[in-house]
Amino acid sequence: MTDTPIPALDADAPTRTVAMLVFDGMALLDLVGPQTVFTAAGMQVSLVAVAPGPVRCDTGVRIEPTTTTAECPAEVDVLFVPGGDVSGVMADETALAFLADRGATAGYVTSVCTGSMVLAAAGLLDGHRAATHWSTRDLLGGLGVEVSAERVCADGNRITGGGVTAGIDFGLTLVARMFGDATAEFAQLVLEYDPAPPFDAGTPERAKPEHVAWIREFLTSPDSELVAAVERARRPVG
Amino acid sequence: MTDTPIPALDADAPTRTVAMLVFDGMALLDLVGPQTVFTAAGMQVSLVAVAPGPVRCDTGVRIEPTTTTAECPAEVDVLFVPGGDVSGVMADETALAFLADRGATAGYVTSVCTGSMVLAAAGLLDGHRAATHWSTRDLLGGLGVEVSAERVCADGNRITGGGVTAGIDFGLTLVARMFGDATAEFAQLVLEYDPAPPFDAGTPERAKPEHVAWIREFLTSPDSELVAAVERARRPVG
Repeated sequence: MTDTPIPALDADAPTRTVAMLVFDGMALLDLVGPQTVFTAAGMQVSLVAVAPGPVRCDTGVRIEPTTTTAECPAEVDVLFVPGGDVSGVMADETALAFLADRGATAGYVTSVCTGSMVLAAAGLLDGHRAATHWSTRDLLGGLGVEVSAERVCADGNRITGGGVTAGIDFGLTLVARMFGDATAEFAQLVLEYDPAPPFDAGTPERAKPEHVAWIREFLTSPDSELVAAVERARRPVG
Repeated sequence: MTDTPIPALDADAPTRTVAMLVFDGMALLDLVGPQTVFTAAGMQVSLVAVAPGPVRCDTGVRIEPTTTTAECPAEVDVLFVPGGDVSGVMADETALAFLADRGATAGYVTSVCTGSMVLAAAGLLDGHRAATHWSTRDLLGGLGVEVSAERVCADGNRITGGGVTAGIDFGLTLVARMFGDATAEFAQLVLEYDPAPPFDAGTPERAKPEHVAWIREFLTSPDSELVAAVERARRPVG
């Protein structure tokens, strides 16, 4: 394959847009990993909140949205939802209506981590295959989604990543699809993405069993807010 | 080695603090990678700016500092500087005085990407070995620093990471030093950090030569702001 032009280096390249939903409780790294990849590839990113004013992320950082669900353009190339504590946004009718509307026409409907549970609550993953944070696979399955344990899951135009750091691999994968390998390789070099994890402990299969149990207990115990949110989002079957 | 307690799961664990400098032009992923690791490990993170009010990051996102250089506690366990466009902060006397002061007593003096050039400008890397973004190694060498091409470079209590995504490996490495391997492994599982880059293009040695040249030209051309900032920060020799 010949090199494709790299949009970030080509002032005449058409602008491709990404609408990233932001909400209280979201995991900031879920957002910033792909956002940095998209920006390095020359895409134009909007951070979309249901209302103006700062959003408080999981680690306590507050970030400012750039637009609102009411003002976001009707057509976007990529629709994206980060994960984190999604129990609130899964019950936010404004956010879900926004996702359902833009998702009906977006070129790609995407998420990282538990963001796929929000897509599912908006009705965008019915009958589709999708990834989520490893600790929440059973919960995603309860929403009518075929759950994937892949780090990046591509099912038609639904492209979803696993937990948190999978967002970087997800972003590069999507950029390669949209613009060709050369643009993704360029972004990977900008981000010096040549990972060297100090331990082999990043998946439940290879981590210490007690660590797996502690994290499951914390995130998905039967009385957790996330489990309650999934119950509310379940649709009647049959 | 026996398991060490994991501070994030132990309400009685002593609080360990991280002061992260934030400034206009910083690369948000440089900050958020390690910040997410530190938070998963149970550390208390402050985002320190020279003045109140939002900071504008490289990708256009605005985040809110949690404190100022004037109000940050005198003693911190970890001092951290992210990279990005550091040409402004390298000439900011308030920021440099803050770093020199806290760096004199901090347990660890740390950075990711071009953040090491800011540490150098503050006089904190004289005679030390440190890493930076691959495209800026020559510039860091011009500041009296022994340049490392490692992804994470440890020289005494100076722990520095390479470009952007190296911040995750840096964060886990530092957490392992401070709390033991089990805490870092726990954080790695929380973040599902089992990277799978879609291409082998994350270092200048393995990327396309034209990509290396384009990025160098963009970031470190002789008339760039960064090169001018390094010239200003040079100390008289001999």
